[in-house]
Amino acid sequence: MNESLRAHRPAASMPGHVVELGPEPPLRLDCGVDLGPFRIAYQTYGRLNDERSNAILVCHALTGDQYVADPHPVTGKPGWWSEIVGPGRVLDTERYFLICANVLGGCMGSTGPVDIDPATGRPWGLSFPVITIGDMVRAQARLLDHLGIEQLFCVLGGSMGGFQVLEWAASYPERVFSAVPIAAAARHSAQNIAFNEVGRQAILNDPDWCGGQYWAEGKKPHRGLAVARMAAHITYLSEAALHRKFGRNLQDRPTFTYGFDAEFQVESYLRHQGSTFVDRFDANSYLYITRAMDYFDLATAHGGVLANAFKGTPVRFCVISFSSDWLFPTQESRAIVHALNAVAANVSFVEVVSDKGHDAFLLDEPEFHATLNGFLEGAAEHRGLPRRGEQ
Amino acid sequence: MNESLRAHRPAASMPGHVVELGPEPPLRLDCGVDLGPFRIAYQTYGRLNDERSNAILVCHALTGDQYVADPHPVTGKPGWWSEIVGPGRVLDTERYFLICANVLGGCMGSTGPVDIDPATGRPWGLSFPVITIGDMVRAQARLLDHLGIEQLFCVLGGSMGGFQVLEWAASYPERVFSAVPIAAAARHSAQNIAFNEVGRQAILNDPDWCGGQYWAEGKKPHRGLAVARMAAHITYLSEAALHRKFGRNLQDRPTFTYGFDAEFQVESYLRHQGSTFVDRFDANSYLYITRAMDYFDLATAHGGVLANAFKGTPVRFCVISFSSDWLFPTQESRAIVHALNAVAANVSFVEVVSDKGHDAFLLDEPEFHATLNGFLEGAAEHRGLPRRGEQ
Repeated sequence: MNESLRAHRPAASMPGHVVELGPEPPLRLDCGVDLGPFRIAYQTYGRLNDERSNAILVCHALTGDQYVADPHPVTGKPGWWSEIVGPGRVLDTERYFLICANVLGGCMGSTGPVDIDPATGRPWGLSFPVITIGDMVRAQARLLDHLGIEQLFCVLGGSMGGFQVLEWAASYPERVFSAVPIAAAARHSAQNIAFNEVGRQAILNDPDWCGGQYWAEGKKPHRGLAVARMAAHITYLSEAALHRKFGRNLQDRPTFTYGFDAEFQVESYLRHQGSTFVDRFDANSYLYITRAMDYFDLATAHGGVLANAFKGTPVRFCVISFSSDWLFPTQESRAIVHALNAVAANVSFVEVVSDKGHDAFLLDEPEFHATLNGFLEGAAEHRGLPRRGEQ
Repeated sequence: MNESLRAHRPAASMPGHVVELGPEPPLRLDCGVDLGPFRIAYQTYGRLNDERSNAILVCHALTGDQYVADPHPVTGKPGWWSEIVGPGRVLDTERYFLICANVLGGCMGSTGPVDIDPATGRPWGLSFPVITIGDMVRAQARLLDHLGIEQLFCVLGGSMGGFQVLEWAASYPERVFSAVPIAAAARHSAQNIAFNEVGRQAILNDPDWCGGQYWAEGKKPHRGLAVARMAAHITYLSEAALHRKFGRNLQDRPTFTYGFDAEFQVESYLRHQGSTFVDRFDANSYLYITRAMDYFDLATAHGGVLANAFKGTPVRFCVISFSSDWLFPTQESRAIVHALNAVAANVSFVEVVSDKGHDAFLLDEPEFHATLNGFLEGAAEHRGLPRRGEQ
């Protein structure tokens, strides 16, 4: 690997844990490929108790990573869920043992298209096998095996993290005591796929993408990836939130200048979102992870009936949606709840009233935090975990 | 102009009427530039009556044109509003004289960035002055002067066409007997601006855009323009419409193939929308017209109070929205109606229940057509036009 290639690979110098799993047995992917060995990069917070009964797996979203509550190693910004993770917080690190792993196909240390294909000695690029949410979850299960954790106290996550939560509950019901899918759905909708496809086309159409081998060419498809991020970012916010934050306010100017610079604050904000994103994310990972989301459809994977995915489940569920989330609207969460009710599962459901859109799960939303806290308290009691302050 | 340049300029050989207006006086644009002479390309349908009282101006949307009911000269497809224009139809060409002009800044024959800047002998590109909805309307008013039409019986249009309708009513109340803004708003919202900005960035980031001088370079930013169209196209449809049309159906394959081809029908559809669009539209025009939409804010232009734009208006309004339109939701139409009510204007308002999203105004929507027809019948009677079949 030459120096420029190394310099472009953020995974190489990521702080935290990295474990190589497989090759015996390799990970059998949904596409039929056997992947192994493969790497999983992860962070942990808190301490696993002697009964190994207080582990919480946090599943991250499309552009998230394992740095739930650590400063991001590239941007230096606080971890993406610092809001609720820490001593005494909702995800109390004095009480629970938190694990968060970079998803398979990601670019923060877990095996993904940015890595070197052992067969060729060159970065995988588009020859990396296409992965699914199921593959991500099976890789996480292998990580738990490695950590000696038989059952999770809870698996939770928002957006694509919620996909993984549902997949965990469906595939490993005996390994999950409780599950919290947040701002999620049991399948990726046509509109969801459409937005992902716009982002992918923006990347694939960038000449610097170089057929996926941009690392080897010393280039990066910054422009395409930035446009993809911009388009996606709009879907994370509600119209009301955009209006409240920016309205039609102008950027650093008293009146229209009649040009194509960022005239409005919302343009400047979006451009900033696009340009900072490319520093921390890999374009091919973006292709692979969005594709994994598109493939997600839990009902089809269970004979066309979503309830079948949860038949006889012992898992305690808490399904949470946000009223202004138009990417994964409440009706999608309701469909999950209906399926769980149909199999008499233990489920509670809360639609949090918020005008912050899909991103609400990452933000300061007291009602959401109170809901999550209440559910975890109840589940902890049922699991026989010590009360707060007693451990 | 060399041959390849000519071949790339669709405007040069457009069928229909073209009139050169100005230079005395030139068109004073909102940005302060005097434009003149300038060309307006337009189509007419039906016959102007002797009293010159039966003229209807149809205003087209962002990617529309003057071919309301003629086959499109590039694609050969039926005119974009053939559904309601023709003998005996809602916009009855045996009764009314219809005019539709390509907007200033467009690429179908009216003066726009694709044209030759007389000062340099090269295509304007980004040196073309930025235009506004007000500029488009003032250019249309000059066309009406040229045609000898003092007052329109009606001005109507959907989406950006509705912006022009509102601008007409506000700027030339004495020249408008009735006005029908459809699926529109009195201002472009932060979310609207954000989606436009994504499209513009896709174009500006395409290396074949060549700083806006792609014509001179013998190139076209096809890829960026296609991505812009794809992103915009999602906003024209409701989630329900996308689900009904495509759902998660696969494209010409029984099962997942685990790749980045158009696996789902919705992807194939979007790619088709992008790739056919670039044959008929100019990237720079896309930049200019989206910018004109962004600048639109009728309240700010009238001291911050929308009602001021219509004080004492003699115009009869019919405001129409569609229940599943999330690009220009009903609340935006309601804001227009409230402003009109505040100045005791003559206004009727209908929210058409439809799951077709913003594009409903272009589609077979019986309730919409009945609403429009009923309003026009009433207005025609008040205007003293002969009844249907009496002319």
